[in-house]
Amino acid sequence: MNYRLHSPRHFAAAALMLLLITFPTQFVQAEAAKQEPVANFVLDNGMEVVVIPDHRGPIVTHMVWYKVGSADEQPGKSGIAHFFEHLMFKGTKNHPSGELDAMVSSIGGELNAFTTYDYTAYHETVPPKALPTMMALEADRMRNLIIDDAVVATEREVIMEERRSRIDGDPQALLSEEVQPTLYRNHPYRQPVIGWMHEIEQLNSADAKAFYDRYYRPNNAVLVVAGDVTAESVRAMAEATYGKLERGEDLPPRVRPSEPPNDASRAVKMSDARVGIPSFGKYWLTPSRRTGDPGEAEALELLAEILGGGARSRLYQNLVVKDPVAAATGSQYDGDMLDETSFVVYGAPRSPEGLGDLEQRVESEIARIRRDGVSAEELERAKNRLVRSTVFAQDKPSRLAHIYGTALATGATVEDVQEWPERIRAVTAAKVQSTALKYLDPQRMVTSYLLPAAETPN
Amino acid sequence: MNYRLHSPRHFAAAALMLLLITFPTQFVQAEAAKQEPVANFVLDNGMEVVVIPDHRGPIVTHMVWYKVGSADEQPGKSGIAHFFEHLMFKGTKNHPSGELDAMVSSIGGELNAFTTYDYTAYHETVPPKALPTMMALEADRMRNLIIDDAVVATEREVIMEERRSRIDGDPQALLSEEVQPTLYRNHPYRQPVIGWMHEIEQLNSADAKAFYDRYYRPNNAVLVVAGDVTAESVRAMAEATYGKLERGEDLPPRVRPSEPPNDASRAVKMSDARVGIPSFGKYWLTPSRRTGDPGEAEALELLAEILGGGARSRLYQNLVVKDPVAAATGSQYDGDMLDETSFVVYGAPRSPEGLGDLEQRVESEIARIRRDGVSAEELERAKNRLVRSTVFAQDKPSRLAHIYGTALATGATVEDVQEWPERIRAVTAAKVQSTALKYLDPQRMVTSYLLPAAETPN
Repeated sequence: MNYRLHSPRHFAAAALMLLLITFPTQFVQAEAAKQEPVANFVLDNGMEVVVIPDHRGPIVTHMVWYKVGSADEQPGKSGIAHFFEHLMFKGTKNHPSGELDAMVSSIGGELNAFTTYDYTAYHETVPPKALPTMMALEADRMRNLIIDDAVVATEREVIMEERRSRIDGDPQALLSEEVQPTLYRNHPYRQPVIGWMHEIEQLNSADAKAFYDRYYRPNNAVLVVAGDVTAESVRAMAEATYGKLERGEDLPPRVRPSEPPNDASRAVKMSDARVGIPSFGKYWLTPSRRTGDPGEAEALELLAEILGGGARSRLYQNLVVKDPVAAATGSQYDGDMLDETSFVVYGAPRSPEGLGDLEQRVESEIARIRRDGVSAEELERAKNRLVRSTVFAQDKPSRLAHIYGTALATGATVEDVQEWPERIRAVTAAKVQSTALKYLDPQRMVTSYLLPAAETPN
Repeated sequence: MNYRLHSPRHFAAAALMLLLITFPTQFVQAEAAKQEPVANFVLDNGMEVVVIPDHRGPIVTHMVWYKVGSADEQPGKSGIAHFFEHLMFKGTKNHPSGELDAMVSSIGGELNAFTTYDYTAYHETVPPKALPTMMALEADRMRNLIIDDAVVATEREVIMEERRSRIDGDPQALLSEEVQPTLYRNHPYRQPVIGWMHEIEQLNSADAKAFYDRYYRPNNAVLVVAGDVTAESVRAMAEATYGKLERGEDLPPRVRPSEPPNDASRAVKMSDARVGIPSFGKYWLTPSRRTGDPGEAEALELLAEILGGGARSRLYQNLVVKDPVAAATGSQYDGDMLDETSFVVYGAPRSPEGLGDLEQRVESEIARIRRDGVSAEELERAKNRLVRSTVFAQDKPSRLAHIYGTALATGATVEDVQEWPERIRAVTAAKVQSTALKYLDPQRMVTSYLLPAAETPN
């Protein structure tokens, strides 16, 4: 579900809602391996700040998160959030296009940006002494961007080419554009983050200006700084840069159209000549951390881990190791969404003719976990794996910045991040089973099939 | 597709997008059986008027069509168009609730209203001498309705009950709420006309007032009067009533978010204990009269007629008469939509276990018409049936009023209605086949299944 679009100039792996790509999205145990506490404060103009001091290396990650993503777009204007992310790399009243880029490169740093359904973020990882400049440039482009027809027209061509390459050139991405609107009948998560081509074509400078003026404001942004800094120094720098920006209008609560009750199973089949091995995915709407009852999101995280979260999972052990019928199989749940999210189980057989058999076996595993639940041991092992995985995150300030930023941009707090390990520890085996029973209902499931062109799709 | 909602007080057959209900939607040959021509003019305040004189009986149908339907609603406000139709039967500044109703009843007339995706209409059929009063009352409620929290709260309960009864109480209606958003990924036709329950619950008097002020204006309305009247008398009456109303703001063109390219086949399965015999429907997005290339809508009408338009159609003859495996089967196309519409082919077997076989046979008939086209004779017979069916419409002024009103509310003209028979006559067998090839593509099809609860839906 974390369909992230990176600016093409710094193109990272396309983190589409792909079968085989998973994001470690779990929160981290912030206490471990850190001396100074995480600081969290708000500037006078409403900009929230999180500082995660870590003095193990002379490096700092600076991120600005805007609480706006593709699910906040107006009907008919799909793609404007991502379009705007591109425009942010153009010139401002004070700095020509490319200056930030060149500066970060020249000091051996990295920068990037991404757009998701719920937020848009910009980040640089640089030596600490470059931080004031990063803040000045980032604050500058929050309000001083030059948006005109020429800039918009040029970037529109770039984005249309990006869409042709990354969506139209990828059968799995195309399939995902059919699955999402089948899963979401009313909520804007049905629309692709990059936007529909025929709507991207129509985006113009008036749309961009309106979007900028509404959403690119300090009171709609979160600053996250992680690395070799102190909370005091970051506060002073932030006040001297972001703190000078004028607060925007108060935005209404982020309430999007929500889903009606869902009473049908649905299937989406796509055939494509570029597909060699067929695959399937099974999707259910599930609560996110923000929308679920206490403990539900954590139970879903553990369910995804036990059922198909890597090499120790049931699906992998039974269908890849013991009886090797699957080339790939697993499950994934992303709780870091502002609204109702999805749980997916996927599989690809070793040979094309094995699709039906593999699908049945995967369905049996789902039925078994609903019927018999999980054992105390496998639950304990899954908890250990999830909590332990956060240790890796501690080693990279950029990863920590990402985790806190995601949380704060989707309605969670610093405390939520820090309490996550104990919330995971508190989940019982009974809760995992009842959650599987409640949500992984075959009568409310969307199944996707990606098939080689030779097969008839119905 | 003509999902019409009638006010419950005058509840007519629920014209949902049901398998077994078809509307004769074709235009009529207006020349036949009439002396005076149809008149078409515009009042100074922008209200369009159509008069269809017919002096064979002392009766007149008076209709006001507003160019607003559920597909014009804002996201999160589904149901407001239909909700508003209910409110129009409440009191105005000049007339208490129920007065119009009582008056029409007392003179033996009929009145009703309905809401569709594209328009909302109010109509009375009365003796001609009551027409001035009807116009006065209809003009009064166009601008003088009393909208307050109490009225809205009461009617909201009524509409929620209507939804429980007509949608939640009807498996086919529930299934249609899953099919539409599967077919329409971006366009608001995906939303039910009555609205999602959780959004109906939130509709309030501010929503209703905004809707009324924007859309219930003479320049957004079409008056259609058919029956024992003259154009001159209608013009005078209209100027004396509607003509006194103030023009509203110019509304922008009715451009809704449109569909991206569709490259997947999809299936929706619903199981329900209330279902005895299973059934299926196959849906394709197709152009409407307004959106298609010249001749495409007419070719689709003929295709629907030849394939499954009644007792002479291929599906009926082959699967009900000759080899009686189907309890019902047919096809339907509704070209009277403002935007992209759908073509549907449906079937229900004689016995539950015959579903798969019937589906295969229906698919074979679709494949055959795509492969071999239609014969000159069956095309000629279908044209005759369609054009002849309009003769029935001539006998009922209310039916004529409906046909002209639908046309004018969906972007067509009086001339379009009158030219329809010759457009039908002009369709070639090659055009019917090329249209079938272009649109009835199994790789872009949505199939719905309504199954008894015993069957597993996947």
